[in-house]
Amino acid sequence: MTMIAFPPVDMSVIDRRAEIADGLRRLIPGEAVITDLRELVAYETDAFTAYRRVPLAVVLPSTTAEVAEVMKFCARNRVPVVARGAGTSLCGGATPQEDAVVLGLAKMNKVLAVDYADRTATVQAGITNLAISAVVGERNFFYAPDPSSQLACTIGGNIAMNSGGAHCLKYGVTTNNLLGVTLVTLDGDVLELGGAALDPGGLDLVGLVCGSEGQLGIVTEAVVRILPLAEGARPVLFGFASSGAAGECVADIIAAGIVPVAMEFMDKPAIAICEAFAKAGYPLDAEALLIVEVEGSDEEMAATLARIVEIARRHDVRTIKESRSAMETAAIWKGRKSAFGATGRIADYICMDGTIPTGQLPHVLARIDAIVKGYGLRVANVFHAGDGNLHPLILYNVNDEAEAEKAERAGMDILKLCVDVGGCLTGEHGVGIEKRDLMRHQFSDADLEQQMRVRGVFDPGWLLNPAKVFPLDGRVTA
Amino acid sequence: MTMIAFPPVDMSVIDRRAEIADGLRRLIPGEAVITDLRELVAYETDAFTAYRRVPLAVVLPSTTAEVAEVMKFCARNRVPVVARGAGTSLCGGATPQEDAVVLGLAKMNKVLAVDYADRTATVQAGITNLAISAVVGERNFFYAPDPSSQLACTIGGNIAMNSGGAHCLKYGVTTNNLLGVTLVTLDGDVLELGGAALDPGGLDLVGLVCGSEGQLGIVTEAVVRILPLAEGARPVLFGFASSGAAGECVADIIAAGIVPVAMEFMDKPAIAICEAFAKAGYPLDAEALLIVEVEGSDEEMAATLARIVEIARRHDVRTIKESRSAMETAAIWKGRKSAFGATGRIADYICMDGTIPTGQLPHVLARIDAIVKGYGLRVANVFHAGDGNLHPLILYNVNDEAEAEKAERAGMDILKLCVDVGGCLTGEHGVGIEKRDLMRHQFSDADLEQQMRVRGVFDPGWLLNPAKVFPLDGRVTA
Repeated sequence: MTMIAFPPVDMSVIDRRAEIADGLRRLIPGEAVITDLRELVAYETDAFTAYRRVPLAVVLPSTTAEVAEVMKFCARNRVPVVARGAGTSLCGGATPQEDAVVLGLAKMNKVLAVDYADRTATVQAGITNLAISAVVGERNFFYAPDPSSQLACTIGGNIAMNSGGAHCLKYGVTTNNLLGVTLVTLDGDVLELGGAALDPGGLDLVGLVCGSEGQLGIVTEAVVRILPLAEGARPVLFGFASSGAAGECVADIIAAGIVPVAMEFMDKPAIAICEAFAKAGYPLDAEALLIVEVEGSDEEMAATLARIVEIARRHDVRTIKESRSAMETAAIWKGRKSAFGATGRIADYICMDGTIPTGQLPHVLARIDAIVKGYGLRVANVFHAGDGNLHPLILYNVNDEAEAEKAERAGMDILKLCVDVGGCLTGEHGVGIEKRDLMRHQFSDADLEQQMRVRGVFDPGWLLNPAKVFPLDGRVTA
Repeated sequence: MTMIAFPPVDMSVIDRRAEIADGLRRLIPGEAVITDLRELVAYETDAFTAYRRVPLAVVLPSTTAEVAEVMKFCARNRVPVVARGAGTSLCGGATPQEDAVVLGLAKMNKVLAVDYADRTATVQAGITNLAISAVVGERNFFYAPDPSSQLACTIGGNIAMNSGGAHCLKYGVTTNNLLGVTLVTLDGDVLELGGAALDPGGLDLVGLVCGSEGQLGIVTEAVVRILPLAEGARPVLFGFASSGAAGECVADIIAAGIVPVAMEFMDKPAIAICEAFAKAGYPLDAEALLIVEVEGSDEEMAATLARIVEIARRHDVRTIKESRSAMETAAIWKGRKSAFGATGRIADYICMDGTIPTGQLPHVLARIDAIVKGYGLRVANVFHAGDGNLHPLILYNVNDEAEAEKAERAGMDILKLCVDVGGCLTGEHGVGIEKRDLMRHQFSDADLEQQMRVRGVFDPGWLLNPAKVFPLDGRVTA
């Protein structure tokens, strides 16, 4: 798949390869600068594996001061910088380019401070999402946003992409749980934006940095909100006779003012794939499955589940299965959270990530089916139904160039559909390189230009992750 | 009080007064352009009444298109523009200046659309905060942020200041409940930022606009989150033997992982003032009062209140009084919400607005007392204790110039204290003109400069609300 162009390689940077490597080694310990091709290939792609480029060099700094030195050096030498956490981006957010230095945060993976009285944790950007919850779990707290990759993905990557997860219906996505960041600019300035205290006044640069996909600077530390664990949590599985019925059920639950902690949808192909992997007791005869999870005390969960079940019954529900134990709950979530991995066992796939108004679910599901069938391909749908965040998995054969291109085109058609019904291009995965050229379908020229002018304040020369987010043509340079 | 300077008046604008008025009348209906001095004085100040300036003109457009025409005209003629909602700003956010056009949004006060399935409302910027809840209340929904001025203040002003309120402990402040805005830039471009759909990708300009105090453009419409009303809500009053005990109780409730919907503090002077006004049954013998409100079903409220009462008992609580009826609940909140008005009946006051880490409450309360006594003045403290948002009311005599200056100095000392203990200058009122010159105490030069460079993308010539937010010296001009 080579439909998406990269910016032209700057040959003057390639020609100075040795000199740049020497320069970087003078700034940070030699073993933290990778220039050997055999090691560099480990960084040639992220989880958006269709696109691969071997970078010029990889640096793995250990401190904010080292990051600042690297940034100043790259700015002075006009070397592009691509930030990388764990490389789990599904939209190519960390895909490098040949003339770029990959700046990996993996070594900066500590919890620096936890304040239980104020419910905040200060962490380095390279810590994994789940490691934060592991640390504060000792006191029955957790960090809420839960991408499926949370075992591996880093908080820095979560901030870059404004990541979400199944439980974000109740708790919000990254931007709702982020209080402050330490941002290293291209000039090597270290900005302390936001912090544990509420609303410091002035412009909200923390909100601006969250979701900016490595284009404004490098986040090296973050202050995140931690939350008390709920007393209990219980999912219920619903099997429906049609995707439409499941979609209408979701819309009715939301319209009734109920906010479950999670509300996850799978269609029949996804049910089969996940059940084969996780043995979670998913109803194989259902056309569509909902996992609805509620939290609270036993009485509260029972009361809310009763209301939800009553709504489901109005929509021709065939199977109702409440979790009766922690083990059953774990199995139900294992199935959902491994949907991408389980799909990967049976086929190559691209995972799309669009959002739609929840009321549009039944219509959009039918249209996705028609779009993908139109290309002669198959699709498995899993998504965060409560907030209308779709993840159609388009199955194809990566070794069939024509089929790969069809899959990519089907994906683009689906994302355009999302925008056309009032949704948008990305719910939680980010724009990256994958959706860059669709941004004009979402935004007016005036909107994009204003975004680029703001971006230009931080990076007038397009050195920071330059292949991403904004279409290559019509770029505004400070 | 004249400690805070305004930017120099641009006499070339004043000289063109008549020409500018004529130009504005060619753009929007004549009755929507105010230039008569007798009418202009109604706009000379906002709720930060210490500073007054009569503006050059006031315009009251009815449509986004009219706002765009006014903005283009002002940009072309280099006339400063000060946006105004209801003029309830406590920090002088809407205080005009002599060479400025005040752009009032009061005529744009409609709910344009409500989507209950997606829980969003699209409203014009001049609608009052409470009117949104009134409209969606028919279906048992509400708009969460609840400034004490919510009967009068507009959503546009709420967005400009990122306003909060007593119930924001659970529901978040404006930025957590704002999904999209229509922003008119100085060039007259109409940008549709964000929207009902989750996370559109690209830079989060909605977050940037929220809290930007009228310095990036004029918000004419907004898409806000609406929430289902809770099944029930019940406050409990606690009277304590000391402010320290109340402060420690708050910290312990938060540290126990309980999130009440509101947790409000009053000290003895504030109790006396509010009880005299609202007859809410506040304990007059207490040194400090907490109002803690919980939501949910009867069982859930009872269970949570039991845990809260148990914690309060560990802190020498003297009075415990649960609300037993809707009328008692209303009286309890009437007392708290009219604290500013009730204070105004007995003395002139300035209301400060800083935040601190909740763990610092007892220490900060003692310091505030010492600071104000040091100036020979009195203070009444009310604040949103759960999220550490203080509102000390410094009492003084507005006709005594020396006392007024002392009050202002005491306020500045208190805000510096907030920053020094790890908090910040403003919790929900904004920076405005009041705290402008303290911004260097909160932010480093590099932080402020970066904020101003981002600001400069929208307004390179400092025409939008230019007297506010950033110290006058060291301003960066694109």
